[in-house]
Amino acid sequence: MLILGIETSTFAGSLALIKDDFTLCEYNFNFGPKHNEKVVPAIKWLLKEANVKKEDLYGVSVASGPGSFTSLRVGISTAKALAFSLGIKLTSVSSLEVLASNIVATEYQICPIINAKKNEVYYAFFNNKDELGRIGDDSFISPEGLCEKIKEKTVFLGDGLIEYEELIKERLGSDALFAPSNLNTARASHCALLGRDKFLRNEFDDFTTLVPNYLRKSEAEIKHGLK
Amino acid sequence: MLILGIETSTFAGSLALIKDDFTLCEYNFNFGPKHNEKVVPAIKWLLKEANVKKEDLYGVSVASGPGSFTSLRVGISTAKALAFSLGIKLTSVSSLEVLASNIVATEYQICPIINAKKNEVYYAFFNNKDELGRIGDDSFISPEGLCEKIKEKTVFLGDGLIEYEELIKERLGSDALFAPSNLNTARASHCALLGRDKFLRNEFDDFTTLVPNYLRKSEAEIKHGLK
Repeated sequence: MLILGIETSTFAGSLALIKDDFTLCEYNFNFGPKHNEKVVPAIKWLLKEANVKKEDLYGVSVASGPGSFTSLRVGISTAKALAFSLGIKLTSVSSLEVLASNIVATEYQICPIINAKKNEVYYAFFNNKDELGRIGDDSFISPEGLCEKIKEKTVFLGDGLIEYEELIKERLGSDALFAPSNLNTARASHCALLGRDKFLRNEFDDFTTLVPNYLRKSEAEIKHGLK
Repeated sequence: MLILGIETSTFAGSLALIKDDFTLCEYNFNFGPKHNEKVVPAIKWLLKEANVKKEDLYGVSVASGPGSFTSLRVGISTAKALAFSLGIKLTSVSSLEVLASNIVATEYQICPIINAKKNEVYYAFFNNKDELGRIGDDSFISPEGLCEKIKEKTVFLGDGLIEYEELIKERLGSDALFAPSNLNTARASHCALLGRDKFLRNEFDDFTTLVPNYLRKSEAEIKHGLK
């Protein structure tokens, strides 16, 4: 089962090809808002590197949010276009779950945070001693409100730390642990592996209906009174 | 400080560009013994993707072993040739330390293992609650001997698990934890970050003298009675 993983929930992006649970190759990049320019050529490059044809893909697994609206749209549009044009399966996974997968074999709570602008972060709680377990739903909150929820040692990771690491350190002291810098971005190999679990459970998305999981309304929706 | 990380200690390879402690891009690949064919073109591709020139590199950090003799030679030869031709700094880091860096924020002991053939593995022990700490030197041992050394919960990772995961499970039971499949290969972003720490401490290697850290003699050395 050859799967392409696409992760573009923030300014960092990641693409990966997995064959069953084996990661053939993965490209992680963090060049700012350039996904539209980078993603499709990089997919072509990875397929060539791995010496596989696009027609050999069983499916594509895409991180569907929450995250940066524009970044998510690029990844999801690409995934839907591939599913449509190649006639392959499609599934979507939570961006926060993909990010949380960077932390394993820990007894601490895991809290991935993505900057949601307007002094809020997208977040969820997980644990991962033997395998990733979700404690609550994906949601959004102020960083101050998030700190108030935390009553135990917690590993934080994600691009929300760029703006809020100092605040979290100040509020939580030694209860807050932080991953090294290169674990603050999500990996498409995890996105593909989580998607594989869904494919094996026959959980598919439809390219005619899949939309990003923004959690909040976009600026444009608020401005124009759209649902 | 722009640094190229090169990690080719096993059949899996990884290349990364970091700018200070920020990972610009990283390419992980696992295509078998093809490093000689893949490494230099992929470095060229990453530099182009990141829109930086090879002349902008401050230095190169290479994983110098222990690991697969042939794979290591490709990475180290490439790193030395770049240091020589571009006149940039060179440093080397332990392959086992790069691999161990995949596991963070844990209270468990970390044991990266790389298959050393002849029923032996290269291994070392680390911990990583707040930052990576080394417990002992890089060494080699039979997998059975390794299990006898372990008296506490330990996270195993690395390509040594392909052959020895079942044996470790059988001997250690619930004291053995295993990382998901895509954390069993080392990341060049970690290699570059560890190299950056060395550069900042003015710890450099010399391209005229750097050799792989094989720990054991190669088959050719044994056969021809070389030192």
